[in-house]
Formats: sequence, C-alpha cells, structure tokens
Amino acid sequence: MARIVMKFGGTSVANVDRIKKVAERVKAEVDAGDEVGVVVSAMSGVTNELVGYVRDASRLYDTREYDVVVSAGEQITCGLLAIALQTQGISARSWLGWQVPISTDDAHGSARILDIRGDDIIKRMGDGQVAVFAGFQGVDPHGRVTTLGRGGSDTSAVAIAAALGADRCDIYTDVDGVYTTDPRIVTKARKLDKITYEEMLEMASQGAKVLQTRAVEMAMKHHVRVQVLSSFEDKPGSLIVDEDEIVEKEVVSGIAYSRDESKITLTRVPDKPGSAAGIFGPLADEHINVDMIVQNVSPEGGYTDLTFTVGKNDFDRAMKMLEDRKSDFGYSDIVPDNNVVKVSVIGVGMRSHAGVANTMFKALSEKGINIQVISTSEIKVSVLIAEEYTELALRALHTAYSLDAEE
Amino acid sequence: MARIVMKFGGTSVANVDRIKKVAERVKAEVDAGDEVGVVVSAMSGVTNELVGYVRDASRLYDTREYDVVVSAGEQITCGLLAIALQTQGISARSWLGWQVPISTDDAHGSARILDIRGDDIIKRMGDGQVAVFAGFQGVDPHGRVTTLGRGGSDTSAVAIAAALGADRCDIYTDVDGVYTTDPRIVTKARKLDKITYEEMLEMASQGAKVLQTRAVEMAMKHHVRVQVLSSFEDKPGSLIVDEDEIVEKEVVSGIAYSRDESKITLTRVPDKPGSAAGIFGPLADEHINVDMIVQNVSPEGGYTDLTFTVGKNDFDRAMKMLEDRKSDFGYSDIVPDNNVVKVSVIGVGMRSHAGVANTMFKALSEKGINIQVISTSEIKVSVLIAEEYTELALRALHTAYSLDAEE
Repeated sequence: MARIVMKFGGTSVANVDRIKKVAERVKAEVDAGDEVGVVVSAMSGVTNELVGYVRDASRLYDTREYDVVVSAGEQITCGLLAIALQTQGISARSWLGWQVPISTDDAHGSARILDIRGDDIIKRMGDGQVAVFAGFQGVDPHGRVTTLGRGGSDTSAVAIAAALGADRCDIYTDVDGVYTTDPRIVTKARKLDKITYEEMLEMASQGAKVLQTRAVEMAMKHHVRVQVLSSFEDKPGSLIVDEDEIVEKEVVSGIAYSRDESKITLTRVPDKPGSAAGIFGPLADEHINVDMIVQNVSPEGGYTDLTFTVGKNDFDRAMKMLEDRKSDFGYSDIVPDNNVVKVSVIGVGMRSHAGVANTMFKALSEKGINIQVISTSEIKVSVLIAEEYTELALRALHTAYSLDAEE
Repeated sequence: MARIVMKFGGTSVANVDRIKKVAERVKAEVDAGDEVGVVVSAMSGVTNELVGYVRDASRLYDTREYDVVVSAGEQITCGLLAIALQTQGISARSWLGWQVPISTDDAHGSARILDIRGDDIIKRMGDGQVAVFAGFQGVDPHGRVTTLGRGGSDTSAVAIAAALGADRCDIYTDVDGVYTTDPRIVTKARKLDKITYEEMLEMASQGAKVLQTRAVEMAMKHHVRVQVLSSFEDKPGSLIVDEDEIVEKEVVSGIAYSRDESKITLTRVPDKPGSAAGIFGPLADEHINVDMIVQNVSPEGGYTDLTFTVGKNDFDRAMKMLEDRKSDFGYSDIVPDNNVVKVSVIGVGMRSHAGVANTMFKALSEKGINIQVISTSEIKVSVLIAEEYTELALRALHTAYSLDAEE
C-alpha cells in the first residue's frame, strides 16, 4: 500500500465526461489499496476566461481581487470530481485552499506556499476517504484568497504530496512525458524516461510547459518522486529523479523555449554605483521578476544602456512603474520589445564538457539568427532571439546536439 | 448620509460591461455621501451552467459538493465588481461568505443564515470602503461552503442589510418593480408602487420571481425597507412596506404562478393515525419541502389517496426516497405529474372581503379549467391546474379581480 497524490491538469478535466474518466483512474488506485489525494486544475479554458474578465474590468487590477476571481476555476473542478468519485462508490470530499488550509504569503497572483496542515486529511485518507484538492490556491495571513501563479496546480500537488508524506506524485497531463524539446515544433523530439530534478528545473524555468518551475523546486527540496504521464494513454511517463539514478548522462538533455518574456531597454542610464539596484529593487518590491540582464557601457562614458526581460504578465505593471519613476531612475528612453523568445539548452553533462555554448552560437549563426542577450548557469545556456526564429532555432539546436530521434 | 445595501441580480452583472455600469451606479451612491454595501449574484447563465455540470456528474449528488461548485459563480462577480469599483477610484474589497463570515446551518443547497458578523465591515464602510459581498453563499459550522438555494442572493442582501443596520436595501433587477402579475403573460399587468411585506411574501412564495420568499421573510422580521427597481432604467421601483403605510387596499393585489412544483400521488395508503406523518416526516428529514396536500378517503374505507406537491428540484430525491421506502409506507402505486402549475391570488384586503375564492373558482370554471388541488391562507387562495392552462388562467383572473390596467 502506498500513499499517492495524483494531479490532473486542465485538459484532463476539460468537461464533465473527462472528469468522470479521471474518477475512474482514481478509483483504480483506490482499488489497488492506495491512499489517494487528488489535485485538480480548472477545466481548460476557464482560467483564461476568468483572467480575460479581470483584464476587461481593469488593465491595472488589484491582484487580491484577481485571486478571488480566478481561484473559482479550481473550486468548480474539485467539487465536480468529488461528486464523480462518490458516484463510483468512492468516499471523497473536496478541499479548498482556505479549508485545508494551504497557508501562503500575500504575494497575490504568485503566492508561495508556507505551510500545509495535513494531519486531519491524512487521518481521513487512512479511513479510506479520497481528498480532492483545488490546485493553484491558498489563503494568506489576512484570510484572503491567494493563487500561486499560472500552472500553480503542479506546485500545489507537489507541496501537498510533501505535506502528506506521499510516496509519489503523479502529474497527469496532455503530454505523455518530458521531451527533449517541444514535439509540436521538432518532430524528431524524443521522450526522456528519466530526467534529473536540476535539468527539469531548468527546462521548466526556461519555458517547457510540462511542469511548473516551483513544483520542481519543491520536489527537489522535499525529495518528492514525481512522474509526468498522460491522462489519455495508459503507459509510463517520465520520472524526475536524483542525478545518481541516471547512468548515462547526455551533455545536453533538452532544449526549452519561452515566449512569455518581454524585453525592456532603458537608454542612457547614469552609470554610477547603485543605479541598477535603484531600478531592480523597486521592480522586486512590486513582485516583478527580472530574468536576463545585459548592460552596455556607452562609449561616451557616464551612461549605460540597460536591457532586461520581464514576464509578459508583468510587462504592463513594469512599464507603468518605470515610466512613473523616470525622473528617479534618470534614463533617457524606454524601448519595449515583445517580439522575443528565449531559447535554452540544458544538461547536467555540461559541467564536464566544454564547448557547449559555442556549439549553440555556431548553430544559430549558421542559420543567420542574431543573439540579443545571453545568460548561462552551470547546466544551461540561454539566448534571447527574435521570436520569428523560434522554430528554426529549435530544430537547428536539436540536430546540433545530436538529440534527433532515429528515423 | 445613509447606509444602504444594493443588490444586483444576474442580468445586471451579465458581463464585464454591465459590471462596469453597476460600478457607476454604486459610485453615484458613494458620491452622494452614502456608506454602501453591494451584494451580487452570479453573471447570468453561470449558475445554470454550474448546476448543469453537477447534474451531468451525478443525478443524485452530494449537496455539500454542489455548494462548492455553484458558489463559484458569485465569487467571480464580487471580485470583478471590486476591481471595477477600484478602477473608478472607489475603495472597495470583496467578501466571500466564509470571510465575513455569513454563518449558516448545514442544510446544503438551501441553507439558512444564522448570523452575520458585521462589526469589522461597518468600521471599514465608515472609513469609506465599499464592501462587495458574494451573494447566495455562507459557511456552515463545519467550515464547509453553503448556498442558500436559488435566488438566495436576495436573502443575502436583506440579511446583510439587517446585520449592517442599513437604512434601505435596494434590489436591482431586470424588471422595474413588482407587478400585479407577470407582464410577459398578461399585457395589462400594472406596476405596484407599494406592497405589504405579507403580500410580497405570498407573491414570492407562490412563484413571483421578483424577490425570493426568504428575503421577504427576513425583511419583515428585521424591518428592512426593501425597494425593487430596475438596473437599466433610472426610475423609482416598488417599495415593500408595512401594511399601515398603504392607504387604499385592494382586495386582491396580485396573481402569482409557479411552474416549479411537481405533483405526486400515493394511492391506497393505509388510513390510520400517523400514516401521513410517517411519510412527511422522512421527507422533511431530507429537507424536501411539501407544499399543497390533499387526501381523499377511498370509498371502500381503510385506505386513502394522498396527493401533494414538492419543488421540481427535490422531485428526484423525493421519488427515490418514496420508492425505496414503499414497503414502510404501504402505498399501492406512486403517480408523479410534472405538468402542473400553481396559480395564487393574493391580497391583504381578503381578510375583510368574502367571496374571493369563489370569484376564482368561477373564473376558472368559465374557461373550462379543472382545479386539482386547493390551498388557502388568510391572504391567499392557491389552486393547482394543468400547466397548459397557465396563461389562460392568469389573464382570466387578472380581469376577474379588476386588476387590468386602463387602455
């Protein structure tokens, strides 16, 4: 007997018929003698619809109210799944974020989980009751609803698995595992049987949608064994494991891309100590994450051009803040660019191999693709390029790193 | 300066544009110096959609989970309205049932409000913050979400108005007041400037959709002045007041009808003391309200045919319970009939006038309409007839009681 947490994404619960199918999957685990917790996303399309309402209501909205609106999506699904399970003769009840409670900080729209009280639920699971959790949501110290940011249901699932001491967290999704790159773009992409937490973390944070970054971070931190598998096919998925479980390491395991970033350039920023901190500090205070940064010292001296990227979701707020405080920051012009994509090559094998970045630059150059910004980490090289080159770049890099599946 | 509660129904908040219009209406009250609480329904269509999901998931569902699903509708609207108000420069925040809290009993799907804690909110309103409440919902003693039953947002509004000590509760809706009968059916229907609590109570409980029965009960109990008015036109509505405020009382003020009932007949029930209690007790235990009852002693003696009506929402559950316990109850056959309508004539003047019922029976008989069940109260006469006669009966009665508007 094992205790497992199963997580189903939006397409897996897209309508009532699919929710019934999910109930059958859950029943199979219960019948096998497992204690089961289930975490659900909103029915596909619902979150986008709700976010659309919020944006129609106001371009600059109160994120506390945004959370009230969008958290309704997962609430609907968890009630429906509890009903579908009961109909199959399974004891089940729904749990909203504030009921568990899933305590978070008050960074509305992208809150972090601080604590999950699992005792009562573990006891109920021991008595045979399936706990159905609304993913993506929690409650802040003031008793207001929070959400964890897009894709946050994965994070909910892993955090709940950790809090319940689960043996495994199965993430059911509309793909059957983790691929070397997006198979919709690169037809020769291969499914990975195993991938390390660290690689998965980079893949997720660099744009692979299969699993949310924070979910992987949390899995790594709490040693939660995570499996990504298909809701629609009954076959093994990809396991996310510790590095020592993988015998033969590739230099590059995967190639990720992200269209979710916008580039902002501030020209002629006074080049003095603290000027970057003076800009990035206030952005951080507004919970706006800055990703890639490049600073060019201007030839005439005393000034610098500062280029950085922010999430597209944060773009409007970032622009407003930067424009409002133009005189504080002392820049000359602000140049936004939404037509960019970040492409990243990732692999733990990179640590022991030289020339990985060079292979990337050469492959892109051969296709005539200009690199705008570069950033690297121990197991990753990322470049920012014009969005129109996305597919071309992915295919070129997949071949350059010998990742193509055999014909 | 007054403290008022404004309630907006589903069609008034049907989409984001209308929610913005509602925000303008609320702003006008705030600008006039009033302290304002707002209660909102789900966007029109949303509740039906959510109820549809629940019914697709299971015909016999757990009402605790039903409440989790359907309460999401009002949650969405109250967050959106808070955002729309903020965009107009009004300080506002949303309040979900469990946040206030609006404490109810645990009769899920049709819970009763037990207590509303208003102190913190009154203080915030004094500081100029508009409180936007999700209507229709509360929280039970176990911390689970409850709903008050269809149309429960009216009840929420009046209960909140009472808890906040509001001077008035304005119910904005898609009609401009209370009519003598349904103007969609009877073109000569007239708008009433004033109507007593008691008459409104009978109108509502007999099917007039303009205001929910329990809302009127609560208004009467707590002496909350209620106005029903249009969201779309800027003109006075109908006031619901004490009887002594109405100078000239009509014998009959209005005619209501309800298609929400189903008739059930149990044939050859053993006719002994306690047999009716033996049937209606278990129905009450299941929170199934029985409305009209008629019992015919069969000529052969020892047996009786028992006919009664239940809400269409409760029909499936009632039938299942009655069939499951057939041997306990000892009846011979169960005969359901969903094609019935209840038509009621209502007026406080009835107390001092004889012959009101007779006028009704005569008017129906002249049109060849057969009366299946009759029930009366001090200010009301109701009859159950075949549904196909609804319009014919309403028009005939409206004329018979001289309610027709002048040409």
